[in-house]
Amino acid sequence: MIKVGIIGSTGYAGAEIVRLIQGHPDAEVVWYGSRSYIDKKFADIYGNFFNIVDASCMDDNMEELAEKADVIFTATPQGLCASLVNEDILNKVKIVDLSADFRLKDVSVYEKWYQIEHKAPQYLGEAVYGLCEINREKIKSARIVANPGCYTTCSILTAFPLIKEGLIDPDTLIVDALSGVSGAGRGAKVANLYCEVNESAKPYGVANHRHTPEIEEQLSYAAGKEILINFTPHLVPMNRGILATEYATLIKKDGKLPEASDIMAAYEKYYGKESFIRLLGDGVYPETRWVEGSNFVDIGFKIDPRTGRIIMMGALDNLVKGAAGQAVQNMNILFGLPETAGISMVPSFP
Amino acid sequence: MIKVGIIGSTGYAGAEIVRLIQGHPDAEVVWYGSRSYIDKKFADIYGNFFNIVDASCMDDNMEELAEKADVIFTATPQGLCASLVNEDILNKVKIVDLSADFRLKDVSVYEKWYQIEHKAPQYLGEAVYGLCEINREKIKSARIVANPGCYTTCSILTAFPLIKEGLIDPDTLIVDALSGVSGAGRGAKVANLYCEVNESAKPYGVANHRHTPEIEEQLSYAAGKEILINFTPHLVPMNRGILATEYATLIKKDGKLPEASDIMAAYEKYYGKESFIRLLGDGVYPETRWVEGSNFVDIGFKIDPRTGRIIMMGALDNLVKGAAGQAVQNMNILFGLPETAGISMVPSFP
Amino acid sequence: MIKVGIIGSTGYAGAEIVRLIQGHPDAEVVWYGSRSYIDKKFADIYGNFFNIVDASCMDDNMEELAEKADVIFTATPQGLCASLVNEDILNKVKIVDLSADFRLKDVSVYEKWYQIEHKAPQYLGEAVYGLCEINREKIKSARIVANPGCYTTCSILTAFPLIKEGLIDPDTLIVDALSGVSGAGRGAKVANLYCEVNESAKPYGVANHRHTPEIEEQLSYAAGKEILINFTPHLVPMNRGILATEYATLIKKDGKLPEASDIMAAYEKYYGKESFIRLLGDGVYPETRWVEGSNFVDIGFKIDPRTGRIIMMGALDNLVKGAAGQAVQNMNILFGLPETAGISMVPSFP
Amino acid sequence: MIKVGIIGSTGYAGAEIVRLIQGHPDAEVVWYGSRSYIDKKFADIYGNFFNIVDASCMDDNMEELAEKADVIFTATPQGLCASLVNEDILNKVKIVDLSADFRLKDVSVYEKWYQIEHKAPQYLGEAVYGLCEINREKIKSARIVANPGCYTTCSILTAFPLIKEGLIDPDTLIVDALSGVSGAGRGAKVANLYCEVNESAKPYGVANHRHTPEIEEQLSYAAGKEILINFTPHLVPMNRGILATEYATLIKKDGKLPEASDIMAAYEKYYGKESFIRLLGDGVYPETRWVEGSNFVDIGFKIDPRTGRIIMMGALDNLVKGAAGQAVQNMNILFGLPETAGISMVPSFP
Repeated sequence: MIKVGIIGSTGYAGAEIVRLIQGHPDAEVVWYGSRSYIDKKFADIYGNFFNIVDASCMDDNMEELAEKADVIFTATPQGLCASLVNEDILNKVKIVDLSADFRLKDVSVYEKWYQIEHKAPQYLGEAVYGLCEINREKIKSARIVANPGCYTTCSILTAFPLIKEGLIDPDTLIVDALSGVSGAGRGAKVANLYCEVNESAKPYGVANHRHTPEIEEQLSYAAGKEILINFTPHLVPMNRGILATEYATLIKKDGKLPEASDIMAAYEKYYGKESFIRLLGDGVYPETRWVEGSNFVDIGFKIDPRTGRIIMMGALDNLVKGAAGQAVQNMNILFGLPETAGISMVPSFP
Repeated sequence: MIKVGIIGSTGYAGAEIVRLIQGHPDAEVVWYGSRSYIDKKFADIYGNFFNIVDASCMDDNMEELAEKADVIFTATPQGLCASLVNEDILNKVKIVDLSADFRLKDVSVYEKWYQIEHKAPQYLGEAVYGLCEINREKIKSARIVANPGCYTTCSILTAFPLIKEGLIDPDTLIVDALSGVSGAGRGAKVANLYCEVNESAKPYGVANHRHTPEIEEQLSYAAGKEILINFTPHLVPMNRGILATEYATLIKKDGKLPEASDIMAAYEKYYGKESFIRLLGDGVYPETRWVEGSNFVDIGFKIDPRTGRIIMMGALDNLVKGAAGQAVQNMNILFGLPETAGISMVPSFP
Repeated sequence: MIKVGIIGSTGYAGAEIVRLIQGHPDAEVVWYGSRSYIDKKFADIYGNFFNIVDASCMDDNMEELAEKADVIFTATPQGLCASLVNEDILNKVKIVDLSADFRLKDVSVYEKWYQIEHKAPQYLGEAVYGLCEINREKIKSARIVANPGCYTTCSILTAFPLIKEGLIDPDTLIVDALSGVSGAGRGAKVANLYCEVNESAKPYGVANHRHTPEIEEQLSYAAGKEILINFTPHLVPMNRGILATEYATLIKKDGKLPEASDIMAAYEKYYGKESFIRLLGDGVYPETRWVEGSNFVDIGFKIDPRTGRIIMMGALDNLVKGAAGQAVQNMNILFGLPETAGISMVPSFP
Repeated sequence: MIKVGIIGSTGYAGAEIVRLIQGHPDAEVVWYGSRSYIDKKFADIYGNFFNIVDASCMDDNMEELAEKADVIFTATPQGLCASLVNEDILNKVKIVDLSADFRLKDVSVYEKWYQIEHKAPQYLGEAVYGLCEINREKIKSARIVANPGCYTTCSILTAFPLIKEGLIDPDTLIVDALSGVSGAGRGAKVANLYCEVNESAKPYGVANHRHTPEIEEQLSYAAGKEILINFTPHLVPMNRGILATEYATLIKKDGKLPEASDIMAAYEKYYGKESFIRLLGDGVYPETRWVEGSNFVDIGFKIDPRTGRIIMMGALDNLVKGAAGQAVQNMNILFGLPETAGISMVPSFP
C-alpha cells in the first residue's frame, strides 16, 4: 500500500483526495494535515466520513511526514509547498503539489502574477507539469509534480491538439470559462456565501486571472512559440464543474478551412487512447453534469464557416480531474500503478 | 457474474442502478429496458455513460428477459410489474420491484391508495418487503422483493427501534419529510421544471401521500398493533436527498422519561452492526449532504423534556438507499454476495 | 416625508428595508448605519443600489440619529438595541426593533434562551409585539415595536385563529419549518458558504431554537393559558422563504371533528379583511415561490380524519413579511399611513 | 388608463408583463390571452396572483382584442404574431411583439434562421426594432414594435457605443453569453426539468443560435457595414439573468490602444442620460444578482493591453429588460408616458 500524506486535507480538494484514496485499491491516507483543525477529528469537519475515517488532523510538518509517507499531496494556498520542500524531503518522498508553486518555469512570471516571493526556485527546473495526458513520460521519474489548476487542465486539453497540429491560429485564442463554487475554496468569505452566489453569474479576474500564464506557457510549448491569450473566468451557481468555451480562427490550407473530420482526426491523434478524455465530436457539446464526480474531460467542437472560427468546448469536474483526481492520476503514474486505479468512477447524475 | 436486467432503465432510479452495477464486482447489466427509448443508445439519453455503456434500449419483454437475466429490476410506474409477472417468470429469475406493487400485503389498501387494480394479488403473500436491515433473512429466499420507497425507507428506519422497544407512543408519530426533486422522476411535467421548483419549498400529498400506508404497515408490525400516522412530504430545491423529521411522545417508565442513553441503546441494539446505518447520536442531526451518493442512512435524535417528545431525524440519498442502492443491496442478499458489494461508496461532498 | 434611520443597514434585512423605503411614497432613508462599513458607500456593498443610493454608511450613533430621524429600525444582533435605547431617545423617535430584544415580556425567559443580560428590561412592559394583524391597535401608540422573527410570524399567524377559537388542542401543536438561507444573515461563516448549503437540507436548533418561546408566548395569549410546543427549523437551499407545516389534534365538538368549513370560518373571522394574509383554503397548500418578494402570508390546511389531526401550512418571504416588510408595515401603522404603503408588491415569479 | 391585451399571458414573459402592469400607474390588463388555459383562472396558473388577479384566460382572438385594447403584447412563439396581424388591426391598436417575427428586416434571413414561412412580410419595413435606447424616436410613431430578444438586448447594448465610435474592430467581435433557465420558457420538456439543469452548465446553439442574425443586423447598422460575429449561449442554473461577455480587438489610433477613459467616454456619450443603463466603468464587472427584478442593464469593461483586446460585459434580467420590462418601456414610449413608468423597481437581492 502506498502511504499518502495530505497537507491541507480539510479544503475541498484535500477532502476529495481523502475520498478518492478511500476507494483506491493500493493506497491509504496516513496523515490528515490541516493547520486549522489540528487534533480535531477529520469526520467532525466532513460529516460524510463519519464512521469511515477515524483519524484526527495533524499539523503541516513536512519533515515528519516525509518519514511516514510515500507521497505527499499539498492542497494548500500558493507559497506553502515551496516554503517547505528541501533536498532531504525530496530524496525521501514524492510530492504532488496542487498549488501553483511549481507550475510556471519562469520565477519572475510566478512572482508577478502571484505577488509573492518564490521560496524554492531551484526546483522549478526539475518539477514536472502534471498534465498527465501531455507529460506522462516525464511524470514517471519526477520528484515534484505540479498538479495543474482546474481551469487550466480544461482549457489546455481542449485546445492542445489543434494548436499542436497547426489547425488554429494560437494568437486568436480566447478562453471563456465557467466554474462551480467549490473552486473558490472553503474559506469563510462573504463573497462565497450561499445568498451571494446563488441565482447569479459573474465574471472575475478579467484579463488578470492567475491561471492565464499557466495556460499560455503550456500552449506555447504546443505552438512552438510564445502566445498570449484572453482568459475570462466566471462564477456560476453550482457546486462542481468547469466548462471552457474556446474560440480561435482556423488556419486555411490551400484556401480552404479545415473540416470537422480534420479536427476530429487531430483530437483522435492525441487523445484516441486516453482513458479520461472523451471526444464527443462535431456538434456535440459537453455539459458539466455528464462529468460530475468523475475524472473525465469531455470535449466537443463546432466549426463556424461564416466567421472562419472554431468553437471548442471542454468540461470537467474541478475537484476531480481539476484537482484531486488528477493528483491521484499523477500518483498512479509515479508509482507505476494502472493509471485509472481508484479514479474510474462513472459520473454521477443527477 | 450475475446478469442484471432492468425494466425502466431510463428513469432516474433505473439509471442509478446502471451506474451502481457498473461499479459492482460481480454483476453486469444485460438488458437496458426502456419502452420510451427503444433502440436508442442508452448513452445518448444519459451522457454520463458516454464511452462506458455502448448498449441500446430494449422493450419491456419480461418473458425474454427472464431467459437472459438472473435478476430483474423493475424501476417503473405502479402496476407494470404486477401486470408482467407470472409463475413461469418467477421460476426462472429473481425480481426486485422498485414500484409499490408488492409492498402492501392488503390488496384493498393498495387499490385504495393507488387507485388501480392489482393484477397479481396472488403474489402479495410471498413477496418480501425489501427493507434489508429489518427483513434480511426473509429476503434471502424470496422470489419477489418489494423494494421500499425512498420516504418510507427513511421514515421507518428512523423510528423502528424506538417503537419496537416501546420507548415511544406510536399513535403520536408524525413524520415530516423533505425530498430532493429526483424523487419526482424524469417525466416532462411543468411542475418539475427548473424554474418551478428552484427557490421554492412546498408541501404536497398532505394526509394522502401513497407512502403513508407503507410506513404504517411496517411500523404496525414493530408496534404489534395497527397504527395510523401523519406523513407530510415536502419538495425542496435539490437534486437528491430525503430528510425525515419525526415527532413522538416518549413513554414514561416509573414516571420518568427515557434518557438519551436509553434511546441510543435501542438504536444500537438494532443497528449497531449494520453497514449502512450510521448512528449520529444525541444532539447530532443528519444532513442530506453527508449521505449524498452513498447507501447510508444517518440517524440522530433529540429529547425535549419540556414537551415529553422526542425528535428523531433520518437522512438518505433517495436514489441510492432510497431506490437503486437498496435494490442492489437486496440483490446482494438474494445471491449470497457480501451485502456491501458495489455499494460501499463514500458520500460525495460538496 | 418620514425620515428613516437604519441601524444595521448592511445586513440582508437592513438592505431590504432600504429597498422597500426606496419605493415608499412617504418615507426616505436618512441614515445608513453599519458599524462594519463606516464611510463606505452603501452601493459598493449592495451593487443593486448602484446609481440609486449615493450615501455612505454611518456609525451606530442612536443619540444623533434620534435627532435626525422620525423612526429608527434596528436590524442588528440581539442585545444592541436594548443597550442603546433610553428615555431621551424614546421621547424623540419611534423604534422598530428587528432583533429579539423586546419580543419576550419575561426578562428571565429572554436571558435563558439568548444567554445575554438584558440591558433595558424597564421597557419590556411598554414594548408592543409588532405582529400587525394581531396587535394593530396597540402598535399605533407604541414607542418601541418589537418586530417579530421570520419563523414566528409564519408559525403564529398560521395557528392563531384555530387556537383562539378552540378548534385545536394547543398542547399538541408541533411546528416543523423550513427556511431559506438569507435568514442566517450575511456573516462570513463556513456553514453558510454556497457549497455547504447547496444541495442539502438540515434540521438545526432542535428543541432549543430561540424562536420557540416567542411562538409559545403569543400562542399562549391566544389559548388563554401557557402552552409548550415543539418547533424544528430546517435550512433548505433557497435564498428566501419560510414554510411552516404545523400539526395539531382537532378538538371534537359533540363527538365530531370540526369540518373544513369550520376551520375556514375561523380563518376568515380573523383574517378575512387583512391585506397581507391570503387564505388558500382547504386542500390548497402554500409554496414559498408564490409569496417571494411580497409581504403576503399564504395559509392553507388539510384535515386528516384518520388521525384526527389538522395540518396547517403557512408561507412567507422571510426578508419581507418576516423582517423588513413587516417593519415597514409597523411604521405605516405608527405614523397613520395606509398600512400597505410601499409594501404592496406582487410576488415575483420565477 | 391604457388598456393592455396580452396574447400568451401564461408564459414566463407574459406573466411578467402582468406583474409589471399591475404596478403601472397608467395601464391595466384587460385580456389575459392563453390558448393553453382558456377559461382557467389566471391565478390558478400563477399562484403569486392569488387574490390579485381575478380574471380567467381567453383565446388568442386578435380581432376582438383590437377592439378592447390600446396595445397588444404578443408573448408567443415565432410565427403567431405575423399570422394574426392585418391592416385593420394595426389601424386600431399598437402591437408590441415579443417574438422574433418583426425583428429582422430581411425576410429570407428570418426564414433561414427560424425555418418557418413569414406570414406578414409586408410589415417588416415599417416595424421598428424596439431597442429603446437606440431607436427611441422611431418607436414613438410605430404601429408594430419588435421587442428585442434577451440575449440580443444585452449583447447589442454592451458593444454598440464602441462599434459606433470605431473603437473596436467589429469583425473580431465574439459574444459569449450565459442565461438563466426562465429564458427557455415554460414548456414541459425533459431538458428543462430541475434535475437536468441544476448543477450543470452547458453551451447550446453554438454557431447557429437564432439571436445571432439579430445581433449582427443591429450592430451592422452601428458599424456602417455588414458584420458577422460569433455568439455562444450557455444555460446556467439560475432562474433569471443574462450575462454577456464580449471580446473584440481594439483599434489603435496613431499606433496607440484606446485607454479606459476613451472607452468610458464612448459609453457616456450614448448612455450617459439613460435611465436604465448603469455604467460600472473600468474594471468593475456586472453580476446578474445586481439587476434581478429590475429593468437595468449594467455594463463594465476591461482592456487587456497584452493582447490588444477589450472585454466588455453586460448583465440584465432576461424577463424584465430582456422581455417584459422592455415591452412596457416601449409601451411607455408609444403612449407618451414617462419612460420609467411602472418599471423603476430597485433590483431585488438576495
